[in-house]
Amino acid sequence: MAQGTPPVRPADGLTTRQRRNRPLLVVNTGDGKGKSTAAFGLALRGWNQGWNIGVFQFVKSAKWRIGEQAVLERLGALHAETGEGGPVEWHKMGAGWSWSRKEGTAEDHAAAAAEGWAEVRRRLAAQTHDLYVLDEFTYLMQWGWVDTDEVLATLADRPGHQHVVVTGRRADPRLVELADLVTDMTQVKHPFQAGQKGQRGIEW
Amino acid sequence: MAQGTPPVRPADGLTTRQRRNRPLLVVNTGDGKGKSTAAFGLALRGWNQGWNIGVFQFVKSAKWRIGEQAVLERLGALHAETGEGGPVEWHKMGAGWSWSRKEGTAEDHAAAAAEGWAEVRRRLAAQTHDLYVLDEFTYLMQWGWVDTDEVLATLADRPGHQHVVVTGRRADPRLVELADLVTDMTQVKHPFQAGQKGQRGIEW
Repeated sequence: MAQGTPPVRPADGLTTRQRRNRPLLVVNTGDGKGKSTAAFGLALRGWNQGWNIGVFQFVKSAKWRIGEQAVLERLGALHAETGEGGPVEWHKMGAGWSWSRKEGTAEDHAAAAAEGWAEVRRRLAAQTHDLYVLDEFTYLMQWGWVDTDEVLATLADRPGHQHVVVTGRRADPRLVELADLVTDMTQVKHPFQAGQKGQRGIEW
Repeated sequence: MAQGTPPVRPADGLTTRQRRNRPLLVVNTGDGKGKSTAAFGLALRGWNQGWNIGVFQFVKSAKWRIGEQAVLERLGALHAETGEGGPVEWHKMGAGWSWSRKEGTAEDHAAAAAEGWAEVRRRLAAQTHDLYVLDEFTYLMQWGWVDTDEVLATLADRPGHQHVVVTGRRADPRLVELADLVTDMTQVKHPFQAGQKGQRGIEW
């Protein structure tokens, strides 16, 4: 981002320092690639600042982001060993969230997803993490698996200084309205169109 | 990316395995955020595959991506210590590329940038890296600091199995044409518009 003076000085009564350190709600949406990858890149940057990172993968998917998970968890372990960076937790839906008592039995994806959101809500209330990545969370709102009004209110009223990054296609307009930073990733060209299959290191 | 059968089976004489493992030219362009962050996310994933990663930052800038550099170099050091992942080199323009004899004296940004590209060209010929991140490289083409025809020919004819990711706004249409995977990051909303200044962990 360019350095310099913002075009508008908001009349919010905050000092520049307070405004600079305002917690952000970031949304990466659109049909193109890079929504999650950019979110994990932010997590990596946050780790380097010593932040407590929480990643929540909400859609049971072939796109488990094995590479990112391995690296971020390795960085979390490095923090435990040497004190470098910050702690990292990576949770994913599927056989059940790691905190779920119903592990292995969650046939109902909607219920499992809602359970994941309930845990995120508890963590936001407890100010557990400095940065939350809610990966593919837009679909939960779209599919009615969570109550969008309640999600928006929870995000808007989150206490303390917690950054939240939401990824997924077709972000709800009210989420976009609430967010501080929104990027739409547009697919211009994809090798899949030319018959290319996904490949190791690029897709996962 | 969705799993399954591509819509087109190309008549390129390649097996699915060969096609799957084809080296990719990736372009992240557009005015929005996430172009570089997504590229560094790919580098992170490649590191986890044991790839040899080379990052080249082409524009002298406040956006030095200090966080990503620290983490990727830390991962490279981890590889040297434990054998995990792959090696990482991170080079940036400014006081002179690390291989430049003219360190500290490069007043001419165009010449310094061209020198960076010449080194990347040598490395592509020598097949030094598995993944190259050419960060903000589109500007060099736009500003005439490199010969676009020569760049395109070098990328098209690169030997072996080397992935290249190019980032920056306003990618040359011929680069888009040559690329395998192109994403346009569109800015929908940015806190800078509302008077927010850049902040640690989010912007750098």
